[in-house]
Amino acid sequence: MSRFWSDFVHKLEPYVPGEQPKVARLVKLNTNENPYGPSPKAVQAMAAINPDSLRLYPDPDSSLLKQSVATFYGIDVNQIFAGNGSDEVLAHIFYGFFKQQKPLLFPDITYSFYKVYCGLYDIEYKPVALAEDFSINVNDYVQPNGGIIFPNPNAPTGLLMPLAEVESLLQRNTESLVVVDEAYIDFGGESAGALINQYPNLLVTQTLSKSRSLAGLRIGLAIGQADLIEGLERVKNCFNSYPIDQLANAAGAAAFDDVEYFDATRKKVMESRESLRDALAQRGFSILPSATNFLFARHAQISGDDLAARLRKHGVIVRHFAKPERISEYLRITIGTEEQNQALLAAYDAEC
Amino acid sequence: MSRFWSDFVHKLEPYVPGEQPKVARLVKLNTNENPYGPSPKAVQAMAAINPDSLRLYPDPDSSLLKQSVATFYGIDVNQIFAGNGSDEVLAHIFYGFFKQQKPLLFPDITYSFYKVYCGLYDIEYKPVALAEDFSINVNDYVQPNGGIIFPNPNAPTGLLMPLAEVESLLQRNTESLVVVDEAYIDFGGESAGALINQYPNLLVTQTLSKSRSLAGLRIGLAIGQADLIEGLERVKNCFNSYPIDQLANAAGAAAFDDVEYFDATRKKVMESRESLRDALAQRGFSILPSATNFLFARHAQISGDDLAARLRKHGVIVRHFAKPERISEYLRITIGTEEQNQALLAAYDAEC
Repeated sequence: MSRFWSDFVHKLEPYVPGEQPKVARLVKLNTNENPYGPSPKAVQAMAAINPDSLRLYPDPDSSLLKQSVATFYGIDVNQIFAGNGSDEVLAHIFYGFFKQQKPLLFPDITYSFYKVYCGLYDIEYKPVALAEDFSINVNDYVQPNGGIIFPNPNAPTGLLMPLAEVESLLQRNTESLVVVDEAYIDFGGESAGALINQYPNLLVTQTLSKSRSLAGLRIGLAIGQADLIEGLERVKNCFNSYPIDQLANAAGAAAFDDVEYFDATRKKVMESRESLRDALAQRGFSILPSATNFLFARHAQISGDDLAARLRKHGVIVRHFAKPERISEYLRITIGTEEQNQALLAAYDAEC
Repeated sequence: MSRFWSDFVHKLEPYVPGEQPKVARLVKLNTNENPYGPSPKAVQAMAAINPDSLRLYPDPDSSLLKQSVATFYGIDVNQIFAGNGSDEVLAHIFYGFFKQQKPLLFPDITYSFYKVYCGLYDIEYKPVALAEDFSINVNDYVQPNGGIIFPNPNAPTGLLMPLAEVESLLQRNTESLVVVDEAYIDFGGESAGALINQYPNLLVTQTLSKSRSLAGLRIGLAIGQADLIEGLERVKNCFNSYPIDQLANAAGAAAFDDVEYFDATRKKVMESRESLRDALAQRGFSILPSATNFLFARHAQISGDDLAARLRKHGVIVRHFAKPERISEYLRITIGTEEQNQALLAAYDAEC
């Protein structure tokens, strides 16, 4: 507390990220990182940069990265915005688009950063309850609003909304911005990026932290029609001219170019997910269908916090959300390497 | 323009950074980068990171970097804030501290991003005119205010305010935050960081983009008493949990640890500055005394924009500010390597 803070700072409730333990040897299945490293071509692209050139500012437009993303999705570079991780991209979206007269709508169980941004920028919001089966019912969003945002697949549930339903919402909600947060889309979904040319009120966000294994470099994206991107560029250029560093610009571009590695690693993650799902089901877990790199699972007999604590005794960290109550018995378990997944099962078998 | 933008976005006037030309072979003296590359130890620290670990999120607290900064300045880690370049640090400061009932004060000729932040966050400000000789007169700041910010040395003038005058201002302005933006302090000034334990309303910002040659990696700092830093952490944790990437955290720490390289390179820049200053004076320039890695100079006969254009014909880029009128005849010339400085002089001699 300080008398020099702006008033609103006293009321802020920051986002709490998953733990980044400094102890080595833990089996870290708590923050949905990719178990496989980045593309070797991304690593080469960084190595190709003369370290002396780090004395220079990076390209403020991250043109290299945007060009690769444009090629990958078959869109124009002016339909792409890049930021320092998708959290920064989302922050600019909330401020640049969601300060409206009507409330922002998002699911009551979802990425918990959304309500934090609302607190930061004084944005009114209205949580919309998930259906009984934890799915998002798009009909519930057809109501007066100043914007709509939801992750697809949703987190922490892992449930995918089919693209046809995303489109159905866009057809019925034309007067406000719809943001589809696709952090996990590459693990089994179809991107709404394919719809941007048809819907002027659609913005899609993505990250290179999950399917492209570059969480350590901080790169996020938004794609949409050029006038939406221009709004984001205006906010960004009033905040920080150079959000993406030189190495991230080069590595991110190479990661998008290396389609083969991208496809191979996400396939391995999806296969491991299904094996782990079966193995957990055999052990008394009920697990939501996942189109992500994690499973959202609860055990029939053991409470969520107890189970998380027992696994931790064996050096296995998973994420447990105490709130809201409806998910307090669930664990969010990142898909690891085969070895990590076996360590998780072994820890379970030893304890339960 | 888009009807989906938040209202204020229509009115934003973004900061315009110096050009980052994509053509090689230019003599780039326009954005005050260091002519020497980063410390070899910073390069080694990045090389020591296993690229596979980039799949993991970085340490959200950038502890490695903060520890090195703490050691360098002899302060506590909880007196240090780190952000994605000092522009991001400044953005969080403006929002987190300067939304007040009274206007923010800053010099009328100064870093032009300050008024951009005020536009972004709807902060009232009052420019305070520089004295006739372009210096900041601290007496002019002893008036009702919601905060004070100025660079020391000031940019683009390059003029240093002695630490005793900074302290005199702090003694007379105790009811609002005073931010000393020390982007260029290492080229001839004395940091106000030495005063933070005495003045609870002092925040000092620094960057690793200038004296530590890491503009390409994006690292900025704020130092001040722990409750001020806590305010910044609250804003940051509502915006982006991980602003500093893994490589920047390691390289920034190593750059702070390598005091020998830091001292050697800044000494070289200061020596070159004085030689270049003499050479320009011989050619009819009047030059403000500089405690930075640039010179602010005007020619007796040739106008600022004409001169910038003539130098550019020879591949030498310097920065010219058309506004405000009081500085429109000046050029801001970054100190380059000896070779670059000679190229500048040769271009001048060929054209003028």
